[in-house]
Amino acid sequence: MQTELSKKLGVEHAIFGFTPFPAVAAAISRAGGFGVLGAVRYTAPDDLKRDLDWVQKHTDGLPYGLDVVMPAKKVEGVTEADIEAMIPESHREFVRSTLAKHNVPELPEGEASGWRITGWMEQVARSQLDVAFDYPIKLLANALGSPPADVIQRAHEHDILVAALAGSARHARKHADAGIDIVVAQGYEAGGHTGEIASMVLTPEAVEAVDPLPVLAAGGIGSGEQVAAALALGAQGVWTGSIWLTTTEAEMHSRRLTEKLLAATSSDTVRSRALTGKPARQLRTEWTDAWDDPSGPGTLPMPLQGLLVAEAVSRIQKYEVDALLGTPVGQIVGRMNSERSVRQVFDDLTRGFERAIDRINRIAGRA
Amino acid sequence: MQTELSKKLGVEHAIFGFTPFPAVAAAISRAGGFGVLGAVRYTAPDDLKRDLDWVQKHTDGLPYGLDVVMPAKKVEGVTEADIEAMIPESHREFVRSTLAKHNVPELPEGEASGWRITGWMEQVARSQLDVAFDYPIKLLANALGSPPADVIQRAHEHDILVAALAGSARHARKHADAGIDIVVAQGYEAGGHTGEIASMVLTPEAVEAVDPLPVLAAGGIGSGEQVAAALALGAQGVWTGSIWLTTTEAEMHSRRLTEKLLAATSSDTVRSRALTGKPARQLRTEWTDAWDDPSGPGTLPMPLQGLLVAEAVSRIQKYEVDALLGTPVGQIVGRMNSERSVRQVFDDLTRGFERAIDRINRIAGRA
Repeated sequence: MQTELSKKLGVEHAIFGFTPFPAVAAAISRAGGFGVLGAVRYTAPDDLKRDLDWVQKHTDGLPYGLDVVMPAKKVEGVTEADIEAMIPESHREFVRSTLAKHNVPELPEGEASGWRITGWMEQVARSQLDVAFDYPIKLLANALGSPPADVIQRAHEHDILVAALAGSARHARKHADAGIDIVVAQGYEAGGHTGEIASMVLTPEAVEAVDPLPVLAAGGIGSGEQVAAALALGAQGVWTGSIWLTTTEAEMHSRRLTEKLLAATSSDTVRSRALTGKPARQLRTEWTDAWDDPSGPGTLPMPLQGLLVAEAVSRIQKYEVDALLGTPVGQIVGRMNSERSVRQVFDDLTRGFERAIDRINRIAGRA
Repeated sequence: MQTELSKKLGVEHAIFGFTPFPAVAAAISRAGGFGVLGAVRYTAPDDLKRDLDWVQKHTDGLPYGLDVVMPAKKVEGVTEADIEAMIPESHREFVRSTLAKHNVPELPEGEASGWRITGWMEQVARSQLDVAFDYPIKLLANALGSPPADVIQRAHEHDILVAALAGSARHARKHADAGIDIVVAQGYEAGGHTGEIASMVLTPEAVEAVDPLPVLAAGGIGSGEQVAAALALGAQGVWTGSIWLTTTEAEMHSRRLTEKLLAATSSDTVRSRALTGKPARQLRTEWTDAWDDPSGPGTLPMPLQGLLVAEAVSRIQKYEVDALLGTPVGQIVGRMNSERSVRQVFDDLTRGFERAIDRINRIAGRA
């Protein structure tokens, strides 16, 4: 499965896999795809360094990339404490009462919240990049808009391609104008931050909007048939994420969460502002319902919402509070019904792709 | 473009085109596809008879079908007046004040509302079928759930295949259990009544759910690349609708509406209950905004909402009130940018399909 982009990056198959887990990223690259490690959870540069060392050691010289969350708009001199101060007390009370209703215990004394928004702040993302540029990464992706111009330039100086996620053709053109190299067209069905335009419509619109820049199709892709569909729509590859969450290499923080993902249908996700303040697709839970309920206080804008719920999310995850336990995931969760190795999932993608090509050639009278 | 289903129906290409306009339906069949005439607007059986006569005369013996809106659940002895009586006065007042705010004139005395919900009622749909079964239609589609068992049986006695729209795998299985022959998997991006699962995810789920019954992919399809994608996902054909609205053969009631469709982007639709009480994708207007506004009275359930707004919709259309003027249409509206004949649109679909097959074969290393 070779496109201009996959050839340029030196990968066997035009399948990109985004994951927060180093073992999954490395396994995707080893399987013949392009593993992309999500950096947002690394608040300490040394932790990122440790995991990039590991990935580097376990990819046998095969290419891989890094995904950061870097706002294009710079907010000078604003600290986490400044943002904390902007959160209304009524919202804090809503968090407390919702957790109390479900008997969610407090974190043990001295244990900090594991889930922080600090990775979303520019200075943290920049310290991640200072680490990352010491490694032979081939791709730098940004999940929130185009990266700042100096970051794009620095990446290019290191021969690193820059990708940015887009939810509309207009958004994709903006990225192209900013000088990025690859657009990830993130359809409505995708997990995490996403817009309202579904992949079937968005992919060809993005392709047309930024031609000749390559587009990766993201959202709803978990089988080889879906890979074939995305490539038929003009994409130069697929950007997958959700399907790696239930692989045996994934280090999910909660066994119960893995079980919920394996059991969920495609109707069990919701596009909600509950997690970050921007619409992000995730498992629907009583937690997302509470935030989306018109009779509640509603969500705060990014980055306030993320800071507001950070400790609550840590508590829900630590104590595996079933009714509230969720995670960002796409509608493809309905087909994630068994735990398999990254290699097995990957081989199913490439085999299913070949089957889809056979079928479509028969339909086209070319078999 | 031949699948088992297209062969069974005797059409050259597995492209189904739903349209309220007889001239468009006939032109789709003549171009090599399968035209499906929407019956919902025919309240008088004689009008339907006249138009089916016309289609029959203009399809040169090629196959075509009919789409009705027939609720599976029968409500005995309820008249339109009974339903009118269930509408709260506050909702009627909201209609009046919203129209007044935009200076929408009254209909001339004696002119009845053209847009009625009566086509949605079972007795009307049954009188349509009494007419339709006299014609050699090859397909009967139902837009609201499975048709009643006796209707399916009657269709089968006439060698007519029965199709039903589904927005989820569970919904598709219910149709299969009811004895229908074809599932139309209606993705989130589709125009008209639709669910929340996007085509990329829904199509293969529906295919798996009802195998070996054929599935048609609906939602987001307006180019040959999208046809190829839908077939790669396992569909035995595509069900298109929106793209025929801006053809030269379409008899749109308002020139201004055609202009709005040609100008709209894929971000200009909304899935709203404003028109019928069930979520239906349509152009976003100040009319849909008013109904979706949390500070307003909100919409009523089907069929109350449709009855409540019927006259208002007629007035908005008659006087082409720009801010309020809309129509059901899918996200593909963003690619409907020029008026072309049905034949041109159809030939673009088949040519684009061949291009997509060429491209995907190159990617797969089979070119």
